[in-house]
Amino acid sequence: MKIQHSVMVGMMSRVADKFHEYHPKKSLRERLEDAKKVTIADGIEIVYPSEFSDQISAVRLIKDSGLAISAVNLNVKSEKRWEKGSFTAPDPQIRREAVDSMKSAMDLAVEFGTDMVSCCPLIDGHNFNFEVDYMTQWGWLEDGIRLGASHRKDVKVSLEYKLNECRNANILSDMGRVLYLCERIGLPNIGVTMDVGHALMARETPAEVMSIAAMSGRLFYMHFNDNDRYWDWDMIPGSVNFWDLLEVLYYLDRLDWEGWFSYDIAVRDGSIVETMQSGIENVINAQKFLNKIGVDKINGWINNQSSALTFKTLIESML
Amino acid sequence: MKIQHSVMVGMMSRVADKFHEYHPKKSLRERLEDAKKVTIADGIEIVYPSEFSDQISAVRLIKDSGLAISAVNLNVKSEKRWEKGSFTAPDPQIRREAVDSMKSAMDLAVEFGTDMVSCCPLIDGHNFNFEVDYMTQWGWLEDGIRLGASHRKDVKVSLEYKLNECRNANILSDMGRVLYLCERIGLPNIGVTMDVGHALMARETPAEVMSIAAMSGRLFYMHFNDNDRYWDWDMIPGSVNFWDLLEVLYYLDRLDWEGWFSYDIAVRDGSIVETMQSGIENVINAQKFLNKIGVDKINGWINNQSSALTFKTLIESML
Amino acid sequence: MKIQHSVMVGMMSRVADKFHEYHPKKSLRERLEDAKKVTIADGIEIVYPSEFSDQISAVRLIKDSGLAISAVNLNVKSEKRWEKGSFTAPDPQIRREAVDSMKSAMDLAVEFGTDMVSCCPLIDGHNFNFEVDYMTQWGWLEDGIRLGASHRKDVKVSLEYKLNECRNANILSDMGRVLYLCERIGLPNIGVTMDVGHALMARETPAEVMSIAAMSGRLFYMHFNDNDRYWDWDMIPGSVNFWDLLEVLYYLDRLDWEGWFSYDIAVRDGSIVETMQSGIENVINAQKFLNKIGVDKINGWINNQSSALTFKTLIESML
Amino acid sequence: MKIQHSVMVGMMSRVADKFHEYHPKKSLRERLEDAKKVTIADGIEIVYPSEFSDQISAVRLIKDSGLAISAVNLNVKSEKRWEKGSFTAPDPQIRREAVDSMKSAMDLAVEFGTDMVSCCPLIDGHNFNFEVDYMTQWGWLEDGIRLGASHRKDVKVSLEYKLNECRNANILSDMGRVLYLCERIGLPNIGVTMDVGHALMARETPAEVMSIAAMSGRLFYMHFNDNDRYWDWDMIPGSVNFWDLLEVLYYLDRLDWEGWFSYDIAVRDGSIVETMQSGIENVINAQKFLNKIGVDKINGWINNQSSALTFKTLIESML
Repeated sequence: MKIQHSVMVGMMSRVADKFHEYHPKKSLRERLEDAKKVTIADGIEIVYPSEFSDQISAVRLIKDSGLAISAVNLNVKSEKRWEKGSFTAPDPQIRREAVDSMKSAMDLAVEFGTDMVSCCPLIDGHNFNFEVDYMTQWGWLEDGIRLGASHRKDVKVSLEYKLNECRNANILSDMGRVLYLCERIGLPNIGVTMDVGHALMARETPAEVMSIAAMSGRLFYMHFNDNDRYWDWDMIPGSVNFWDLLEVLYYLDRLDWEGWFSYDIAVRDGSIVETMQSGIENVINAQKFLNKIGVDKINGWINNQSSALTFKTLIESML
Repeated sequence: MKIQHSVMVGMMSRVADKFHEYHPKKSLRERLEDAKKVTIADGIEIVYPSEFSDQISAVRLIKDSGLAISAVNLNVKSEKRWEKGSFTAPDPQIRREAVDSMKSAMDLAVEFGTDMVSCCPLIDGHNFNFEVDYMTQWGWLEDGIRLGASHRKDVKVSLEYKLNECRNANILSDMGRVLYLCERIGLPNIGVTMDVGHALMARETPAEVMSIAAMSGRLFYMHFNDNDRYWDWDMIPGSVNFWDLLEVLYYLDRLDWEGWFSYDIAVRDGSIVETMQSGIENVINAQKFLNKIGVDKINGWINNQSSALTFKTLIESML
Repeated sequence: MKIQHSVMVGMMSRVADKFHEYHPKKSLRERLEDAKKVTIADGIEIVYPSEFSDQISAVRLIKDSGLAISAVNLNVKSEKRWEKGSFTAPDPQIRREAVDSMKSAMDLAVEFGTDMVSCCPLIDGHNFNFEVDYMTQWGWLEDGIRLGASHRKDVKVSLEYKLNECRNANILSDMGRVLYLCERIGLPNIGVTMDVGHALMARETPAEVMSIAAMSGRLFYMHFNDNDRYWDWDMIPGSVNFWDLLEVLYYLDRLDWEGWFSYDIAVRDGSIVETMQSGIENVINAQKFLNKIGVDKINGWINNQSSALTFKTLIESML
Repeated sequence: MKIQHSVMVGMMSRVADKFHEYHPKKSLRERLEDAKKVTIADGIEIVYPSEFSDQISAVRLIKDSGLAISAVNLNVKSEKRWEKGSFTAPDPQIRREAVDSMKSAMDLAVEFGTDMVSCCPLIDGHNFNFEVDYMTQWGWLEDGIRLGASHRKDVKVSLEYKLNECRNANILSDMGRVLYLCERIGLPNIGVTMDVGHALMARETPAEVMSIAAMSGRLFYMHFNDNDRYWDWDMIPGSVNFWDLLEVLYYLDRLDWEGWFSYDIAVRDGSIVETMQSGIENVINAQKFLNKIGVDKINGWINNQSSALTFKTLIESML
């Protein structure tokens, strides 16, 4: 397993929910400085197009920072034009713009020396019964992703599923649906960004769906955070479902997976820099705890399906 | 749309949960008599192998009843031998027996003049982290279903997904995962039994996932019931999520779908026969309510994404 | 039952979630004009202190609008000072300010000719384990509400519970906890604002908890909206759980309840004015549908616990 | 904190769900022998009346076992007579029988040298809208518990809430509602059995609601197990929400609480005796892990609301 850790600079600016603002907006320059203070990180994930209203200077700023880029995160949800959807907008011009944005993000990725575009199409779905045409919508999604990803073979398009938000029901809701979409489209450069919190809120066992994706070579990229299995609170990794975190790391190790872990943490209390640093340390320490137990012992648990012994040993190993 | 209605004779015997028995066990003969009293039904769904401990006399009894068979429901979860799984049991002999059971169910279906075997593999999955090997388990599932379904081309194997129970996390948990499995296996006679309640508890919009399945010809069979989106209570169709029921019927009509609706209702209060009868009538009356509104009006709602108008009209139409 | 309908002018301005803005900010003046266009409404609910940065002119503007005030909604969550809590902030000065805000809201209510202050303390609770001292926090909540509500006897303090948001776990989370708090404090002018959507997301049956509150005279005020029982989407009333809406109205009628229904709808698609109008019409039409069936028939269902008949009749009554 | 550990002998017999039987029925004699093999336990919890069809011999058997009795668990849900409810059955004779059962359980408790009757009224509630009269039902519940608990002052009646099952919606659903009920009834010998898993599935933070109950002296008895926050799987304590387990122990220690921990674990895989033993050891080891960290450090986390530091330290402490 060869892992690098990345912080999402998009999460290091304004943090707010419907009712309260926890951290104020910061410029890209300020956030790049902050990102360097997360000394344990190996790079950053950068959002396109929001960070690139002045593309030339933004690219220069990011390159000058010396920070490695783990992925370009394609955001096709926030701008006004996406209000009725992006890849599934009823207006064909908007759908074309979503595809074009994906192509641009792929080109930008190459410019930054990465081969990864991650995209979570959160404004494609529905809120009410009898609001959208599900068949047309699914067809548009297949067409749009196929068109975009066909732009170039040297860049991966990694789709991030999420059950809901913005839409009450997102069309790309869970791992099964993304893998089905990948099979339907059939391109080798399409895969999955597995956000551990999104798996939890979709009532999936993270290690299970991650393994199924990895078996067919579709596990491209990882997002780490945690939640209560109900809502995507983007909490500190390991702060709720610590066993799930351990299990995810155990399988990635078995798969000898190589890639980036990106940290999608919404910091409402305390310092963003310190929390990002701690979040990464938690994952590294969880791996150390696994090593303390030893892979052979864990393999034995699974072979014997002996859960009582498993949890007795896990907890004893802390003492 | 050409629909026939079927009652599950497996649900017309003992009804019990962990704490209380609501209805006592009844013999197959008694239940076949009861099923005839559900006068609005066009046929029955029958469970294999539990009803067939004496296969010759059971087949004769069912044939003599004159009731049409909508599907053979393959149960590979209740017997002691399945305690560690069926298609994903660690013991290869048990996995072979699961496959053989599927083949036998397919042959039995032909004997009953139907081309449908429906199977919900509820004992394949896991309860705890670090309990099973997810990759091996998924491989066994693919292999087992492929082997079983390859037995004969003239019978459909319709897989019913469910989020949990028996296992805390079933391997065949949601629509996306079933469709992905179907693509991986690639046989034309594999598809989905869509249980409306299972879609709800997997946090799916039933009409949406049903439409996606139907688009690739995988929607083979329907189960109707209702619940609170949390647990599979098998309530009376339309008794909780009436709009979802309407929307399902609207899409089936648009798809001009032909097939069986089976009623998987757990009757804890009152007469099983009367509740099955009412359950079917609810679905038929929901279709009448749709007709009262008119398809053109509904198409207009969807084209205009005008939810405020949609629900105003739906409720006004009741007055 | 004597009901008046109110729109929340706080919901008629900017509508946004974490990712997208659906409607832009509007001035109070504009929103009061909009509120008049909701012709079926009898009044408005107004937020304090956010609308009252210039209190004299805001009061005059509202009074000049000629719109009746159903309640003053006390917001102690959005301003920076509440970031660590309001009634349960660790800083005693902040807790005093929360209490003082409640007193001011009560005085303002009187000025507007209403006796109702509604308050949903959404920033009191916790996000993580080991983050707050639960015992101290509960004590502060009791003390703060008691102190505030003791300010004057002629104004009701109506507490609105909500499971989460802003906090992952709000301290005033469900009906049972509010009623317990009311008993502990013991003042007659403390009661509950029952938001139908909040009941649903707390996994309550709205009509049940509403009835329990009303039995001890604590049901002061109602908020109407709907959701999928998981998240407070503030959807159009009746657009998801129509039977729950009917049941709520049936019990309010039996209780011969008098008061205000306020409409807490987040309009993401289409016109806010039209959606508020439709939302109110849905509730009025739901009442008409109940009358079409007749109270006696419903009483009979309940006396006989005959759910199969209940839903058969409900659906037949639509045809 | 002075804790004793108890196993539920009711969970050491047949273990089954709707679809599969995992362990066969065992006689009381066999289970008492098994309970002795759980060497780390200090006593047992015993179910009344199911174990006492022949009361004299059952009492003798239990007394002869030499096992201490932590509580008598009053079961008023399984027998046929309770099918419409126990304390809230429409038939007044059945309600009287529920009250009489409580009185008998209290007398039996004294005979066993304990002062604790624990009761989870799982068949009181509703499945459908328009099925029961909520106001009458709540009144009956208050009356029944008051009448029963008034039988004698030297025995505690400890009410265990649960969100659902048997009923889709139990009337005694969450901590708030139990505490409200206790206030309404007003007897000092009424309190709460806090089942950690029931708190989780009611979306409560276990340590929070436990603390609120303890503040007014209502926390009488504890049940330990774990689940996924959705359904009461009765899993091994600490096997899902380990931080919640730690937090519960931390607060009990601060409260210097004295009493019994009972283990309500449904063992589907492996040996019941070994799993009960492991379950108790997990709780004891979790306490040791707390001690390893030290109370002062945890107090500091709470005073500083520094969650990033909290979880960094918790995980580092395992290494």
